[in-house]
This record gives sequence, C-alpha cells and structure tokens, in this order.
Amino acid sequence: MNSALLEKVKHIVGEKNYSDKIEDKICYSYDGTPLISQQPDAIVFPENETQIAEIIKLSNEEKFAVVPRGAGTGLSGGSIPVENSIVMVLTKWNKILEIDQANLTATVQPGVITGKFQKDVESLGLFYPPDPGSLNVCTIGGNVAENAGGLRGLKYGVTKNYVLGFEMITPTGEFLKIGGKNVKDVAGYNLRDIIVGSEGTLGIITKVLLKLLPKPQKSITLLAFFDKMLDAGKSISHIIEARLTPCMMEFLDHTTINCVEDYTHIGLPRNSEAVLLIELDGRGDEVDIDAATVTNILKMNNCTYVRSATLEAEALELKTARRSAFSALARKKPTTILEDATVPRSELPVMIEKVRYASGNFNVEIGNFGHFGDGNLHPTCLADERDKEGILNAHRAFDYIFNEAIKLGGTITGEHGTGLAKKHFLEQLVGSPGIEFMKKIKCVMDPNNILNPTKILSIGPKCEGKLPSSREEIPEFHK
Amino acid sequence: MNSALLEKVKHIVGEKNYSDKIEDKICYSYDGTPLISQQPDAIVFPENETQIAEIIKLSNEEKFAVVPRGAGTGLSGGSIPVENSIVMVLTKWNKILEIDQANLTATVQPGVITGKFQKDVESLGLFYPPDPGSLNVCTIGGNVAENAGGLRGLKYGVTKNYVLGFEMITPTGEFLKIGGKNVKDVAGYNLRDIIVGSEGTLGIITKVLLKLLPKPQKSITLLAFFDKMLDAGKSISHIIEARLTPCMMEFLDHTTINCVEDYTHIGLPRNSEAVLLIELDGRGDEVDIDAATVTNILKMNNCTYVRSATLEAEALELKTARRSAFSALARKKPTTILEDATVPRSELPVMIEKVRYASGNFNVEIGNFGHFGDGNLHPTCLADERDKEGILNAHRAFDYIFNEAIKLGGTITGEHGTGLAKKHFLEQLVGSPGIEFMKKIKCVMDPNNILNPTKILSIGPKCEGKLPSSREEIPEFHK
Repeated sequence: MNSALLEKVKHIVGEKNYSDKIEDKICYSYDGTPLISQQPDAIVFPENETQIAEIIKLSNEEKFAVVPRGAGTGLSGGSIPVENSIVMVLTKWNKILEIDQANLTATVQPGVITGKFQKDVESLGLFYPPDPGSLNVCTIGGNVAENAGGLRGLKYGVTKNYVLGFEMITPTGEFLKIGGKNVKDVAGYNLRDIIVGSEGTLGIITKVLLKLLPKPQKSITLLAFFDKMLDAGKSISHIIEARLTPCMMEFLDHTTINCVEDYTHIGLPRNSEAVLLIELDGRGDEVDIDAATVTNILKMNNCTYVRSATLEAEALELKTARRSAFSALARKKPTTILEDATVPRSELPVMIEKVRYASGNFNVEIGNFGHFGDGNLHPTCLADERDKEGILNAHRAFDYIFNEAIKLGGTITGEHGTGLAKKHFLEQLVGSPGIEFMKKIKCVMDPNNILNPTKILSIGPKCEGKLPSSREEIPEFHK
Repeated sequence: MNSALLEKVKHIVGEKNYSDKIEDKICYSYDGTPLISQQPDAIVFPENETQIAEIIKLSNEEKFAVVPRGAGTGLSGGSIPVENSIVMVLTKWNKILEIDQANLTATVQPGVITGKFQKDVESLGLFYPPDPGSLNVCTIGGNVAENAGGLRGLKYGVTKNYVLGFEMITPTGEFLKIGGKNVKDVAGYNLRDIIVGSEGTLGIITKVLLKLLPKPQKSITLLAFFDKMLDAGKSISHIIEARLTPCMMEFLDHTTINCVEDYTHIGLPRNSEAVLLIELDGRGDEVDIDAATVTNILKMNNCTYVRSATLEAEALELKTARRSAFSALARKKPTTILEDATVPRSELPVMIEKVRYASGNFNVEIGNFGHFGDGNLHPTCLADERDKEGILNAHRAFDYIFNEAIKLGGTITGEHGTGLAKKHFLEQLVGSPGIEFMKKIKCVMDPNNILNPTKILSIGPKCEGKLPSSREEIPEFHK
C-alpha cells in the first residue's frame, strides 16, 4: 500500500486511531497461533460504523485487504494479516449496552471481554455458558467470529447457541442487521449461523445480541485419578449410558499431568495415566444424587482416588489442574502447537491411542488433554521453531492425527476454527462440493475478496497477497 | 412439460414410482396452507439417491422445477408446486437407520414420522424434543426443511438445534454430506444451518443425523384459568424473573377457549380471558419445588383456578385443551388461516392486544393461542374462501398484525417458514441487503432456479412459472 493510500485510510479514522509504526505493525503481525506471522501495512481503531463502512468501501475500490481483530487469542491464525492489508482492531468497542432481564438477552459491543461479561450477568443470577480457555482476555466479537467453545460444550453448546443476532458491515460496506430478541425465528435463510464462525471473512460485527440462561443454583466438581486411560474412557461411557449430562467432563493425559504437577505442585499422582475433571450442575438436590452416581461409576472403573467440591473456592482448586494445562505444557518448550482434533465421543479412547502413536512414531513430545464429554481433544506439541526438523516432524504428526480423526468420523477443528492453520485439511473433510459451496458463498458476498482473505478458503488472487503460513514452505504437506 | 420430457422422468424412477394421473396431481397440488394450490405436471417417488440426482440433472438441462415434499403439513406453502414442475415425494424413505446410544445420535431417512421417532427413542430412555403440532403426521425431512418448532421451544429449542448433519443432493445434482457425530465442529463455513430451514430450495435431504438427549425423569403439567389476559402475561413474566425455565408455557385466548369447549366439553370456564398450560420437567424433586413456585406465582396473579398432573394420562387430559385448539377453531368455518407472528416475550401482551384490535377493526373472527414462553403467537382467522371480501379483510388483518410484530422487534414467522405465504413481508423484516444476501446464496447454489422455486424469494423467471398464490391477485397487498 503506497503512502497516498495510507493517508486516505488515516483520514477516515483520524490520526489518533491510526498507526503504521513498526512497533505496532510487529504487535499486530501475529495472534495466538504459533509459526505464522505477517506484518500489516497499518492498523486502525475505528470509532463507529460509518468509519468501518468507509474503510471497507475504500478497500474495495483500491483492492487492499482488511483483517478484523479482537484480542487475537485465536489458535488457527484467523486474525493474521496478509501482505497488502490493514488490521482493524475492535477491542475498544467494549461496552455492555443492555441486559434485558425480561427477555434474558444482552446486547454488547464486540470488544467486551468474555470473562468480564460472564461475571456481570452472573451478578444478576444469569448465565452465559461459553467459556473458552482464554476467557479472561478474549472478546465476544472474536468468540462469535470463531464460534468459540469451551469446557461446558457437552451440556450447554458453543457460542453459536447463544447468538440471537448482530449488526455488521458487509464485505461491500453495507450495514446489515440480523436476528432479534425472538426465541424462534425462521424467516428466510438463516444468515446468522453462516456469519457466526466465518472468522471475519463475511462481515465485521459491530454489535451482538446474546441469549442468557438462568444461573444454575448448584454445582459439584469431581477430580478423579486413573492408572489406565482405558478406565477413564469407560467411566465416561458409563456416565452417558446412565443418561447423565454433566456440564464438564475434562481429561489430562500422563504427559500433561506431569507438566501440570511440575508447574503447580498441587499433588497430582505422577504415575496416573489419566485425570478426569467432572462438573455437574442444576437446580437442586438432584445434583448431589447425580454426583453420587458418577462417583460410584468412577470407582467401579478402577478410579484410584476421587475428590469432590461443592464450594466455589474448593472447586476452583480442583479445576486448577485442567485450567493450567496449556500454560504448564507451554513452559516446557519455546513453541507450543495446540490443536483441537475432535471425534465422536465413542471414538475418543481410540483417538487418544492414535495421538500416543503419533508422538512416538514421529518423535515429537505431545501432551494431550481436552473435553472428553464432547470428543474434543487438545493434543499439544512441545517444539522449538528454530529446530526445522522438529517442526517438520510436528507437522507430520498432526497430518497423521487429522487424517485419523477424519477416518473416525471426526473433524479437524472442534472449536479453534479453520483459519490458516487447518485449511489444508478442509477439502479432505468436507469434500469438493462442500468446498465449492463455501467458495461460492465467499465470492458472492465479497467479490473483491477484501475481508480477511486467505482464511478458511484459498480464493485468490485479488487481495490475498502472500500467504503468511509456514506450512506453505513445506510442499509435501499440501493437501 | 411435454410428454417426451415426462417419459424421460418416468424412465428415471420407473413406472411404479411415477404418476401423472389427474387424481394424483390434484392430491399433490396443495399442502396444509389455505388459499394456495397449483397442480404439478407429474409426481415421482424416487427409490434412491441416484434417481434423485438424475432427475435433478434432467431438470437443469430441460428447465423444469422440482418440488420436494414430505407429508405436506406445512403452513406457509413451502411444498406447493409451480407451473412446469414435478413433485418429488419422500414419504416412503421412512426407516430409522441407527440409534447410537454411546453418542446419543440417531440416523434416519427423511420420511420418518416425527411422533413415531419420538416414541421409539423414548422407549430407550432418550428424548427428541422438537414437537410440531402435526407430529403424528409430519416427517423429519419436512421438519428439517422448515426448521419446525413446537411446544417445547423455550427450554429445548427447535429442529435446528438437533440436526448434527445430513446427506443431500444439491440443486445441480451432486451428492453432499454435511456434519457428523461430533458434538463440536467449526470446520469451514456452517453449511448445515443454512440448509436447515431453507424449505427445500437449496437441496434434497436424503438422510438426517439427529442429536438426542436423555429423557427427563419427571414432569408436572399445570392448567390455569384467568379472567384477565393481562394477569396471565404477568404470571409468565414473574416465572421468568424467578429464573425458572418451564419446558412449555402455552396460552389460549377467550375465542379459542370457547371454540375448544364447544368441541371437547372438558369444562373450560367460558368467561375466562386466558388459559395457561405450563409444563415443568427435570431430573428429580426440583420439579415439585418449581411447580409449587409456579403455582404460587399463578395465584398471586389472580389465577381463578389451577389443576396439576404428574401422571402421563392426567397430563394428556390437561393438554387436550391446547392440543385441540387448531382443530376446534378449524371446524367453525371452512377456511382456517393459521399464522405465527412472533415477538420478544416481553412484548407478547402488547401483541395480543394488537391481534384483538385487528379482529375488531377488520371485522374478522380471530382466535389466538400459542407459545407464551417464546413469544410465538398463532392468531387463527376463521374465514370462507368463497367470501372474497372476507378473505380480503383477513389479508388486511394479517398485514396489520405482521407490520405490528415487526415494529415490536418481532418476526413474520416463528416456526412455519416463509414459503409462499410470507415472502411478501420478508424484505420489510430483513432489509434490502439481507434479501440480496439470500438471493445471492440461492443463485450460486441453484443457477437454473430449479429447486422449489418461488419459495422464500422471488428470483424468476427461469423455472418459476406462474405463482400459485392467491395473494398475487390482490395487488394492494404486495410488499
């Protein structure tokens, strides 16, 4: 982008909302995804919808790319710039505009931090279930763009299930309002759910209308240790067969247990193959009854030790093991590649074995943890990006893992999104007619391919510029 | 369609799966929607995916329309043929292919009857919540096409919330598999939720993968009478404020109460302005506690009488009043126009007043009932299609009702779909960029506009033929 064009951009948002300083370009060249970065030509912090629409119109005229971004905690490269692009940051749009207690809805700006929003609604006896790992930093706008998940997916679903509507600027700079406070609405095509999870490629969301639930009155948290992963898997199956739906059923594997114990010193048994963290919630005494049933199932499946907590402080202590898994693994090596291969729940024990095999066969250290209840694994590779052979091996291991997940009826991403990091696998998963359908939607919505190009799909060339993916340099892994 | 072309169609499906007899053409000229009908040129009952794909390919070559159809219970004209079309009937695809108890999923053919499916899964202690009024007749395929709702929407959502995936034939005759048994899946654009509710305009669904829940262990049903509708409305607000989520909160208005009493003689108090039917379900004793809280709230809001039932037979008796509302209204006059204007729950008392005003002002008899918990009204106009002036007045009343619903932040259809009957109102609701977005999706997916044309959107001309809507003859109501 030449300086005359950058001046036009600056003129739209005003000098105080614009930067092309090198230190800012470096800061906004990456997100939470390892191994991928690309500097933008400038960064803008628009103040209102008109500025956003004007930028988008200019980008269509002048053919540069616009990459919208919240806190940048994404793990699939969804907010990495491309060449010939500006980054549009929405973190300052951080107001909760309304909490409507009669209709159980909230209207928020996209930059509201998820964890703060949860605390605010909980103080009113309400509940916003989606709880991605980054909830203390990430924003609602980013959650909507990536259709973020979290620990409570099995019982409460993901972000999509709580988005009633939004306002957005389209890729051609038009204002579009979708949805409303109606619990049921089937008028026309469901545009809402194609925008949610489209990773900022189909629109820039400027306001979000969210559904809330009454806050569960009671919850019980259980932490259980197993010598054998197989026994942990059987416990989960038996809980489902007993027709119970805990709000959380998380696991850590042996490698992760040891990393967490090194980091936290909370007394996890280092020889255990698996730890399960289970949380039950509900309205009353049935939570106690269900917790007793679950405890029984755990014991019948050779659980070596189980602890339970009803008070919030105690429960938080038990959750420390799970909540610190990523940080504990991340401190082991400079580069942490956290993935989210997902399979039908019944296939999870098989998939855990496949991950273990990949670790040995490709000679990479992989810690495994995640959501047992919804089949969503987080195999986490501990690597060092300066070690080219090690990174190649990590890619080989993940190629194997994703291939096996697809063979088991699984998917390449349960909650992180496709972004740049997974798009090589997408056609294998959804087939050629599926990819064509997706490309058609992107092309008719964004004819100049200006909005967050290169993410999810390769449309090119137009605004795509050079791909900032390290995988591009490893031709044998192209799908 | 000329006879040579019809011969080609017959050749694809075989003689026994083809008809162009006048009696069959008449039978398949309408669905559950009053005032609209159009004979197709032929009817086919394809036996497999290959036959469907071949028909679709032929229709693209020869430019005739294909109108897929299940039981035809729809109320928005979603399965009415157009000129120059064949109807494709899928009711014979009625097998439940798998119930997977480990993953809590079921795989079914599209012609499976919803009510039968519910009974089958309930016998295994499982639960499929969507329960449209026509559940004993309608099919899962039709439910998916229309994103059908039902009485349990407030707590359990609608059909969309239970569709994990499907197989379909695209409008250009390709096979497309979408989704899987994964509880979480964010790979690529969410094609699933744009197909669900697209009323057979974007694909012909040949297999459906559904999510199941554990069956609630207990339920309590309450039937309560009010002298004033306002008091019924306040009760609902107070229940929501008490952070309770009943699975049903239904109402009947004065006109409907009297029609139901004429029909059933179950002893409804004829002078009541409102009857509420409330059902609570859950895992244990909290259901009793919540029922006591609700009963208290009803009494504090001047409920004149309340009955409760725990046993299924007793509960069914209480539900008779609500379940027979449509039939009871329908027997009063030859033509019953059942609508589903929907507003945010807090606006429901206002909207009920608007319907009452419309009835008086336009001199039409309207009974009102529906889902108080999710703001979904069913104002039902009792008319006679031979009385042209009466029908004009009915259209005038509904124009007023939909306009007012939109003004209150509501929608033109909560669960019946847009079809032919509501498409005049769609642009007013979603705006011009919304309509353009929808049209673009239809045009890129179905370039020859062969699949169920004229529904939801007016794309024309190509395969649309003559519109079979009576509203077309009433130009002053065109939007």
